[in-house]
Amino acid sequence: MKLATYKDGSRDGQLVVVSRDLSLAHYATGAAHSLQQALDDWNFIAPQLQDVSLELNRGRARHAFAFDPSMCMAPLPRAHQCVRAAAYASHRDTLAEAGLLPERVRHAPPAAKGVGPRVLADLCTLAGDAMQGATDPLPLPDEAWGLDFEASLAAITADIPAGSAPARALEGVRLLMLANTWCLREWQAHERAQGLSAVHSRPAQSFSPVAVTPDELGDAWVQGRVSLTLQTQWNGRRVGLCDAGADMTLHMGQLLAQAAATRALLAGTVVTTGPLSCPGVGEGSSRQWPQGFHSIVEKRAMEVLLQGQAATGYLRWGDTVRLDMKGRDGHSLMGALVQQVVEAAQA
Amino acid sequence: MKLATYKDGSRDGQLVVVSRDLSLAHYATGAAHSLQQALDDWNFIAPQLQDVSLELNRGRARHAFAFDPSMCMAPLPRAHQCVRAAAYASHRDTLAEAGLLPERVRHAPPAAKGVGPRVLADLCTLAGDAMQGATDPLPLPDEAWGLDFEASLAAITADIPAGSAPARALEGVRLLMLANTWCLREWQAHERAQGLSAVHSRPAQSFSPVAVTPDELGDAWVQGRVSLTLQTQWNGRRVGLCDAGADMTLHMGQLLAQAAATRALLAGTVVTTGPLSCPGVGEGSSRQWPQGFHSIVEKRAMEVLLQGQAATGYLRWGDTVRLDMKGRDGHSLMGALVQQVVEAAQA
Repeated sequence: MKLATYKDGSRDGQLVVVSRDLSLAHYATGAAHSLQQALDDWNFIAPQLQDVSLELNRGRARHAFAFDPSMCMAPLPRAHQCVRAAAYASHRDTLAEAGLLPERVRHAPPAAKGVGPRVLADLCTLAGDAMQGATDPLPLPDEAWGLDFEASLAAITADIPAGSAPARALEGVRLLMLANTWCLREWQAHERAQGLSAVHSRPAQSFSPVAVTPDELGDAWVQGRVSLTLQTQWNGRRVGLCDAGADMTLHMGQLLAQAAATRALLAGTVVTTGPLSCPGVGEGSSRQWPQGFHSIVEKRAMEVLLQGQAATGYLRWGDTVRLDMKGRDGHSLMGALVQQVVEAAQA
Repeated sequence: MKLATYKDGSRDGQLVVVSRDLSLAHYATGAAHSLQQALDDWNFIAPQLQDVSLELNRGRARHAFAFDPSMCMAPLPRAHQCVRAAAYASHRDTLAEAGLLPERVRHAPPAAKGVGPRVLADLCTLAGDAMQGATDPLPLPDEAWGLDFEASLAAITADIPAGSAPARALEGVRLLMLANTWCLREWQAHERAQGLSAVHSRPAQSFSPVAVTPDELGDAWVQGRVSLTLQTQWNGRRVGLCDAGADMTLHMGQLLAQAAATRALLAGTVVTTGPLSCPGVGEGSSRQWPQGFHSIVEKRAMEVLLQGQAATGYLRWGDTVRLDMKGRDGHSLMGALVQQVVEAAQA
C-alpha cells in the first residue's frame, strides 16, 4: 500500500492512497482524513485503505485522479516524535578519519555501568513540525550557514513499548519513505563546540511524496534493511548511488529498539537513518568511493583524506537536490524528492 | 482563561475550560475537541473558549461539573515540537562549580563566526509524545538509572516565524504551565561522555493539570517572567521555593527567539525553562541556599561545594514529587503536579 498527504490548506493535509505505479491517487476520506489518524487506529483503518489500494491498482477506483507529487506535503506533516539515527557506520568512520568529528564523538566509550547492557546508538531528537513536502522549496537565509543534505531512509512506526527487543521493534515499522535531513554545518560545529544538542543545525526535514508499507518492497525488504540503490543527484549530477541495505550497520529494528530503550514510541514516530554511506576501496592516494556520497560533509572528508583539504562547498541558493529509489522493476518506489534551495529573508 | 485536557480514551483527550478557582470545568466541545485543534486556529476558537470561561467564572455555565485533576492528561498530550531550554543560569553555574558538568559545557565559547551575532542558549529537542498528566504515576524500570526531577515552567506557543526577535516571540506565548522534565542522570552522563544528544535520558515530561493564558497571572507576568514562587515538595517535604521570575536569566521571549533562530515554531510548540534555581548566599562553609533546590542534581552540587561529596541519592520507587504555584490570592494557579515514582517491568 502506498500513501501520500495532499495539500489542502490545513496543517495535517488530506490522506490519499496512491497506485503502485504512482500514476493514480484516491482520497482516503471514507477511512481517515490524515495519516496520523490512520496510524492512531491502524488495525481498524489500514484494511479500509488497503481496499482502496486494491481498487486503484486494478484500475477500478471510481474517483481516482492523476497523482501529482507537487501537491504532496510530507506523508506525515507533523510528527510527535522524530528521531535521527546514524545507521551507516562508514559515514562516521570517514568523517572521523578525516578529523571532522570532535574527539569525544570519535572514541565513544563502551556502555556505562548502570544503564543496561546496550551500547547506545547515535540518536538525536528533532522537531516534528518542520516536515517539508517533496517538491517544496527549501528556504535558506544565509549561504554561510553551510546547508548540507543527508540522503536517508525513514520509517514511520506503530506504538512500540519501552525496552522492546530489535525483532519486536521491527514489527512496528508501518511505512517507509525517503528522507533528507537537512543540516546547517556551521551551526552544527557551533553546537558541538558548546556541547549543545542539535537544535539550530536542523532547520527542516523533507520526505518523498509517497510512504509505502514494507510489503511494497517485496524481497528488497530484508530483515529491516532495504536492498535497493538510493540515487542522489546534486544540480542534476549523480553524486551518490549506495545500496541502502548492504552497508547499513544497524537495521531498522535495531534503531527503533535503541530509540525505545527508556520510553515507548507512540504511533507516528518518525525515525530517519542518517545519510547513506559506503566504505571506500583501495589505499592511500588510490583510494576511491565508487558509490559516491549522500552528504556533502562526507565528500569533504574524502577530499581531506585524498588531498589534505576539503574543496567542495556546501549548498548555494538555486542548487537542487534530488533523491529517488527504484524498485526491482525499474520504477520509482516512493516518488522523487526534488527540492531547490532558495534565498529566504532573514528576520 | 484556564484550559485542561480530560482523559477520554483517545490520544489527544477532550479539551475542557476550567474556572479561575479550579473548582468547575466545562467541556469545550462546541469550540474544539482538542487543545491542538484550538491552537491551530486560535484567533477563531479562543474567543469561543473565552465565552465559556466567562460563564463558568460567573457561575452561569449550564453543564459545568466539578473539576478533577486526576482526570487530566497533560494540557497538550502530544506536541509536534518540544524544546527544553536552560533559563536559570545559577543551575548551570552551581553544577559547573561543583565539577558536575563536562568541561566543554562549562566554558562555552562565544558565538561562532558565520552563524549570526547571537550566543546560543542551551536548548535541546525532546520527544513530544511522552507528555504525562499531573497525577499519572511515573514508571521507572531501574532505580540505578538515577531518576531526577526538574521543576520548571513551560509555554505553549502560537506560530512564531523563523528569526523572530525576543519581543515578537514573546507575543507568541499562548499558555503557561508547570512542567517536570524528568531526567535519568546515569543515562545523561553516558550520553554526554559519548557526545550524544539527550534521548535516552529524557523518558517523559509532566505538566500541571491546567494551562493558563498569561493574563491569568495579572501583574505577576512581567516581561516574559513569572514573579511567583514555585513550591517543590519531595516526599511531602518542601525542598524548593524559588521565585520563578527573580533569577530567570533569559525570559520566555528570549528562549522562544533562540528556539526559532533558524526555523519557525509552529502553533503548539512546548518550550520548558529547565529547573528553577536561585544562587547561593554567603561564602565557603557558611554558604547557603535558603530557597532550596528544584532538581536533585543541584542539591548534590551544593553538597559537593559544602562537604566535598554528594550525599543525596536520586529518586526511589514510591517517592512522590509535587509542584505547585500559588497566585497573589494564595490559590493554586494551575493546579498541583503530584506524581509517584513506581516500579515498572523492564522489557
